[in-house]
Amino acid sequence: MTKPIRIAVLGASGYTGADLVRLALTHPRIEIAALSANAKAGQTMAQVWPHFAPYPRLPALVRAEEIDWAGIDAVFGCLPHAASAELLSQVKGPKIIDLSADFRLKDAATYADWYGGAHPAPALLPGAVYGLTEYARMALAETTIAACPGCYPTAVLLGLLPLVEAGLIGIDRITINALSGVSGAGRSLKEANLFPEVAEAVHPYGIGHHRHMPEIEQELSLRAGAPVIISFTPHLVPMNRGELVTMIVETKASVAELREAFVGRYIDEPFVHLLPEGVAPATRMVRGSNHCVLNVFADRVPGRAIVIAAIDNLVKGSSGQAIQNFNLMFGLPETTGLEAAPLFP
Amino acid sequence: MTKPIRIAVLGASGYTGADLVRLALTHPRIEIAALSANAKAGQTMAQVWPHFAPYPRLPALVRAEEIDWAGIDAVFGCLPHAASAELLSQVKGPKIIDLSADFRLKDAATYADWYGGAHPAPALLPGAVYGLTEYARMALAETTIAACPGCYPTAVLLGLLPLVEAGLIGIDRITINALSGVSGAGRSLKEANLFPEVAEAVHPYGIGHHRHMPEIEQELSLRAGAPVIISFTPHLVPMNRGELVTMIVETKASVAELREAFVGRYIDEPFVHLLPEGVAPATRMVRGSNHCVLNVFADRVPGRAIVIAAIDNLVKGSSGQAIQNFNLMFGLPETTGLEAAPLFP
Amino acid sequence: MTKPIRIAVLGASGYTGADLVRLALTHPRIEIAALSANAKAGQTMAQVWPHFAPYPRLPALVRAEEIDWAGIDAVFGCLPHAASAELLSQVKGPKIIDLSADFRLKDAATYADWYGGAHPAPALLPGAVYGLTEYARMALAETTIAACPGCYPTAVLLGLLPLVEAGLIGIDRITINALSGVSGAGRSLKEANLFPEVAEAVHPYGIGHHRHMPEIEQELSLRAGAPVIISFTPHLVPMNRGELVTMIVETKASVAELREAFVGRYIDEPFVHLLPEGVAPATRMVRGSNHCVLNVFADRVPGRAIVIAAIDNLVKGSSGQAIQNFNLMFGLPETTGLEAAPLFP
Amino acid sequence: MTKPIRIAVLGASGYTGADLVRLALTHPRIEIAALSANAKAGQTMAQVWPHFAPYPRLPALVRAEEIDWAGIDAVFGCLPHAASAELLSQVKGPKIIDLSADFRLKDAATYADWYGGAHPAPALLPGAVYGLTEYARMALAETTIAACPGCYPTAVLLGLLPLVEAGLIGIDRITINALSGVSGAGRSLKEANLFPEVAEAVHPYGIGHHRHMPEIEQELSLRAGAPVIISFTPHLVPMNRGELVTMIVETKASVAELREAFVGRYIDEPFVHLLPEGVAPATRMVRGSNHCVLNVFADRVPGRAIVIAAIDNLVKGSSGQAIQNFNLMFGLPETTGLEAAPLFP
Repeated sequence: MTKPIRIAVLGASGYTGADLVRLALTHPRIEIAALSANAKAGQTMAQVWPHFAPYPRLPALVRAEEIDWAGIDAVFGCLPHAASAELLSQVKGPKIIDLSADFRLKDAATYADWYGGAHPAPALLPGAVYGLTEYARMALAETTIAACPGCYPTAVLLGLLPLVEAGLIGIDRITINALSGVSGAGRSLKEANLFPEVAEAVHPYGIGHHRHMPEIEQELSLRAGAPVIISFTPHLVPMNRGELVTMIVETKASVAELREAFVGRYIDEPFVHLLPEGVAPATRMVRGSNHCVLNVFADRVPGRAIVIAAIDNLVKGSSGQAIQNFNLMFGLPETTGLEAAPLFP
Repeated sequence: MTKPIRIAVLGASGYTGADLVRLALTHPRIEIAALSANAKAGQTMAQVWPHFAPYPRLPALVRAEEIDWAGIDAVFGCLPHAASAELLSQVKGPKIIDLSADFRLKDAATYADWYGGAHPAPALLPGAVYGLTEYARMALAETTIAACPGCYPTAVLLGLLPLVEAGLIGIDRITINALSGVSGAGRSLKEANLFPEVAEAVHPYGIGHHRHMPEIEQELSLRAGAPVIISFTPHLVPMNRGELVTMIVETKASVAELREAFVGRYIDEPFVHLLPEGVAPATRMVRGSNHCVLNVFADRVPGRAIVIAAIDNLVKGSSGQAIQNFNLMFGLPETTGLEAAPLFP
Repeated sequence: MTKPIRIAVLGASGYTGADLVRLALTHPRIEIAALSANAKAGQTMAQVWPHFAPYPRLPALVRAEEIDWAGIDAVFGCLPHAASAELLSQVKGPKIIDLSADFRLKDAATYADWYGGAHPAPALLPGAVYGLTEYARMALAETTIAACPGCYPTAVLLGLLPLVEAGLIGIDRITINALSGVSGAGRSLKEANLFPEVAEAVHPYGIGHHRHMPEIEQELSLRAGAPVIISFTPHLVPMNRGELVTMIVETKASVAELREAFVGRYIDEPFVHLLPEGVAPATRMVRGSNHCVLNVFADRVPGRAIVIAAIDNLVKGSSGQAIQNFNLMFGLPETTGLEAAPLFP
Repeated sequence: MTKPIRIAVLGASGYTGADLVRLALTHPRIEIAALSANAKAGQTMAQVWPHFAPYPRLPALVRAEEIDWAGIDAVFGCLPHAASAELLSQVKGPKIIDLSADFRLKDAATYADWYGGAHPAPALLPGAVYGLTEYARMALAETTIAACPGCYPTAVLLGLLPLVEAGLIGIDRITINALSGVSGAGRSLKEANLFPEVAEAVHPYGIGHHRHMPEIEQELSLRAGAPVIISFTPHLVPMNRGELVTMIVETKASVAELREAFVGRYIDEPFVHLLPEGVAPATRMVRGSNHCVLNVFADRVPGRAIVIAAIDNLVKGSSGQAIQNFNLMFGLPETTGLEAAPLFP
């Protein structure tokens, strides 16, 4: 009855693209009209992704330039940075939900600093909305470009923004320790991502210079009304999915007061959940779902608190939040297609 | 509008019970009315299962005897064998979908042999339907007791029955090698199930006497019209979910002929999928979904073929098939609530 | 020729005890004379630990009180806290290498605060040496009681002490994020340690009150000459072995100066290794070995640095360091029996 | 005092080569004189293998042609097939221990069939000894070329040869199901070996045509005195190391008689262990060690038995057995350098 919303997914051969297709498959309003993946053009989705074997009617992969944009209502960009903005800047018509880093930073110069090259489409930056859904609903409803946050920034900002907005924490010594599953590294062929290199092991990476830092700082600074610089150390954990951030903040507030700030902000949120006092967030609580769980704890060092948040990096940290933003951009109930409960064990 | 179907889940503190609740939560016709778990009565589901923290409206756990059966339309039994039949034999009113072994074997004496005690409710056995859905639709539509198959039998029978029915394979030398994720061992406290005992390792168990053997033999014998005895060796694999069976069968048929038998049987099945020639089934293809993928290969030994099938042991191997059977028993479309695509990675 | 040193291991049924036996088996001077495990007394080691099946000559497990202490030269205590001191205080004759927490804290009152009960043998505390080998060689050579540090304290202190000793870092805002494999939780039967609860997941625990905190603070305070209080958040990672600590410190020194401090302290150490500039420590570098790898990085926040250290929690973090201390106590070369290179993958 | 035996390792950048270096590092008679890896020539071992960071004195990697063979006593070939024989056929002087497939098959035509090309050095085949140590000691002591068996063949043959030699089992219906850790797939960059593709999953591969089949058949045929053809299905298991084979054999003998055959053959073996009756072999029993554990069980199908064997694929299945053969070729005690007990957990 209701006309379906026809989507294209650019970069359907990456983990993010595949998870978007997974969610789109059961979204009641979406019709998957086109799937691109230049290096694997000509193959079926089931050839590239054996778990789609039961879905033979998915469109085969094509090169991005083969897509007929007429009749496409929305495009999800799941390409690497730079490639994404370059391609999307040429697409006219569909609303854009981009999962790359290209439209996240307001400042093209900052982009150039962190991503090693001039921004391919700076003219589009002013119109893009940083799509941390819970903090951008009204803007998302009216934009044609949603820039979905990185996975780490999603967890970090959901955990810190209520406290920053309420002026409850210091902004000059925020320390973030982050843990991520290996799907965050993508499906590219690197020795470091082979099973035997990662399994039974843990290590930090991108120490002091991970590319998710500037967008975290941008959003914290915006809310704090002053420049924020963070310590951020991500680690690779031997699991497929999941992301957990442990953040030490300086505060004069009690845990009760901090909890109150979270309750005030998230009490009605469908996907962000403050856990009962003392319950530690864990990635197993959110696996495969669009939920974020968080909590705050007293630190042994006086004047500090520990904020912890967990998400599934591919869902709330990527494709799920993209669908959530899509829903808002098309006037649908925000939870449409995202109802699945976490998969445990 | 449509009146919901109110269900009770007995044994909601086990992995099977939890996965049933997960599926029921998004089933459009189900209302979860009662959840029992004697040892954890009084706790909320989120206390027992942190991944249900976002679902505070789930009923709290009660003792089975506290359930008010008036107004319950269906009961899912997720209890250990013997306990299940004992309890369910006293429940009057709701239709029964049992996930234990108690109603699977037609013969109470065989049950006593394998399960170490007299059957607690032999009078119910004749009315129970062995609920391998694809082979029992008509009976399921009319029964009040569905005995859901074990996880291994589900994978084995989906792989062998088309060939047995077509008379294409010998029945006296069927060799089954089976691999299962650790959730199949349940949430009970055994040293052997601790992470460090299982991770980075693999081992067989129940060699020559696993309790899923008699139900496999019962169903094969029934279809073959002659007694079938099998070799069956299960192994524990360091993964949460998933089950894969590798079966060596004696046959005079070619792979093409065997494939044809599968196509004929499963071409229209929503959850059973013959993979393209040469593609090996893998548990990652079905994780978190109700799908079964299978295929058949030539063996190097002449006169033999290799049949391989993979399922998610907790979904098609347990709670998903239970929902599938429930759908049939209540006249709903069989795929209702089971539409989620596999979660990969 | 050379008379063997006869040892007893108390608590040989835990992971720590088993790893001590593993190392002792190939130690050229050790003869394993007695193994205790009260709950499993009467069983062979191979029954309790199948990986010792190839070593049928290991003594069977007995109750601790059955051990004939005459002729035992050294006893390794691998018991839980409190039980350890209680038992060891009654053992006369052998030198004691204790792996529990009982002899680590100098102050019996602090012990009572953190371990929930009066110290069972406070009279022994003054004579015990805190056995972080690299910092206690002379004392270890002369003591009869070595208190082996906890696993986290070992990694933390190896990473921080050179900087504290050199006065290079601030001591009031040390932030420690710690990651551990599951063997650190022991072989006790808890739901939280079952494979499906831990695999494919990560979570923090003991937030703000982990029992390794007071011994870290004791040793840091001792070297700093002033009370140190730390932020410390441990996390459970789905791997068997390995521990990695990521520490944010306040410093006016450059990375080069900090590296120099490490070089000065560890250049000749057989088991502690500063990695080349920019190389991140990883647990896979030390698995199964007594090595510690560490490094220091600039932080994005000015005035901060990031120190990272990795060990195998069961070896350098426990049984390996115990052997290392044993070697010193018996005048043997410190690396005896600890030469095995890391096992990767 | 004793002059060291100087070795070269060709292909030190693969998992097999690295594990050989690990073992050689603590071998009391070996001096590692040269390490080659063409694609990574010029790098240090620690750059290629971070776990060798504590061993800065290891020779840097060179191209194979740069090695000065004068003064090298033994060369370990850890190269891919074809490349190995091609290179080794030009090496004059050192004894050769080859871990590739190139010298395993007696018949160059069979080699061509299975390995897709003419044998590069057929003249060397007659002099090569198939180095399943326990069955080739005398020949190994006199040969200059040891062809180390593949990992699967090692486990399979140790489990079957005593029964074949004793004429206790039928040879025309041997069914082998095999499970391997991912290190067996090597360090080459394939999507299929990325962590997220393998973790939390299991699948078969090489169904009916795995290249380890002909050498198993060759050795079984040799001992049986008649051609043997096998069913063999390997599976990839999400673990780093370990290999377990489950073999269904036809036999008129009782389990007791089969056990007796194993006892007779292996009672004095340092590395091959028949487990007590009823104890299932597990890869965790042998991790990191050169041991093989095995056992035999009654099958439910009359006239069949189940033989199960487990090894560490990189040690007894590869580098450990290579060292064991090396020891024999140089007149050293066979267990030299292989004494390490299994690493569990």
